Amino acid sequence: MKVLLIGASGIIGKGVDAELSPRHEIIRASRTSGDVNVDLKDIASIRAMFEKIGPVDAVVSTTGKVHFGDFAEMDEEKYRIGIDDKLFGQINLVLIGREYVSDRASFTLTTGILAKDPIQYGSSASMVNGAIEGFVKSAAIEMKPGLRINAVSPGVITEAMEGYAPYFRGHDPVPAARAALGYAKSVEGLQTGQVFEIF
Amino acid sequence: MKVLLIGASGIIGKGVDAELSPRHEIIRASRTSGDVNVDLKDIASIRAMFEKIGPVDAVVSTTGKVHFGDFAEMDEEKYRIGIDDKLFGQINLVLIGREYVSDRASFTLTTGILAKDPIQYGSSASMVNGAIEGFVKSAAIEMKPGLRINAVSPGVITEAMEGYAPYFRGHDPVPAARAALGYAKSVEGLQTGQVFEIF
Repeated sequence: MKVLLIGASGIIGKGVDAELSPRHEIIRASRTSGDVNVDLKDIASIRAMFEKIGPVDAVVSTTGKVHFGDFAEMDEEKYRIGIDDKLFGQINLVLIGREYVSDRASFTLTTGILAKDPIQYGSSASMVNGAIEGFVKSAAIEMKPGLRINAVSPGVITEAMEGYAPYFRGHDPVPAARAALGYAKSVEGLQTGQVFEIF
Repeated sequence: MKVLLIGASGIIGKGVDAELSPRHEIIRASRTSGDVNVDLKDIASIRAMFEKIGPVDAVVSTTGKVHFGDFAEMDEEKYRIGIDDKLFGQINLVLIGREYVSDRASFTLTTGILAKDPIQYGSSASMVNGAIEGFVKSAAIEMKPGLRINAVSPGVITEAMEGYAPYFRGHDPVPAARAALGYAKSVEGLQTGQVFEIF
């Protein structure tokens, strides 16, 4: 399969790359590196990427930013950072990508454990992850027949624990290589409308 | 208790009013009717409402609009209708309301069955409801101690079936009076961070 991997230079992206590249052709996309550059916050940039690479059989997104901050100081503007980036970045990847992908392609988005298992400072992540999961379940039943969409919900990633540990006490970290299995299940399996939890 | 009920003129709002008014003082808020007018899309309007009514012991929102439409025709702009209205309307009600409510107050927001049980044309509702549920779970653990927040997730409401039936075939409609029990559980109980499903 030809797999477009967005966020290929990130920790999860590298895990997905290592998992899928022995069996598939990977087109690596990032903001500033890789085979093709893309800014998911810019619809024109998403369109230009798909125009450049031609049809793919799988679109995987392992990217998306949210604002972490004390709930007491959260306001609409801070919540909108995650809505604009992690939510609409990935949603627009699907809404535009569906025009370009092959007939039996899959989309795999990234949500995360905070949708269900919240932490201090994480209310924006919880909100955005909930939105992604609702979108995936509903988009799956209405997509053009043959197309599929899933999300992977990883726990905190082992390789990110150096920075994240103080915020994720008690969480059992997930190596990127194990989180990558969720993406493989979505890309190489046939399920749709699922949230694969890798906690 | 002094209960601020937003969306008091709506179908669910009337059910909540009937359930709570025998035991509590209800301040009815709507865009154009009731005891106080509010437009949840306008932060200044929310603030003016709380300034006017003084401290309350419970804030209940039964309101919020999303765009229903064929997934093939959904774009960012259409998804943003629900994000701006049903999501940020209710979020801002909490973010502003928390400055004005009494020390042991509760917030009760409205999500809905489509977060879990999607229908055609409902992908924006699924997305927004997922976001509300993620927010409620996370905000609950970080709120000022004593404050609580829950959401009620009703199925399609019996009294709305005249218009909604074609889109909700197979769904077992919930009378507004039964959906109202979820709001009573949130307002009059002590749970927090919960999504009360009334399907």
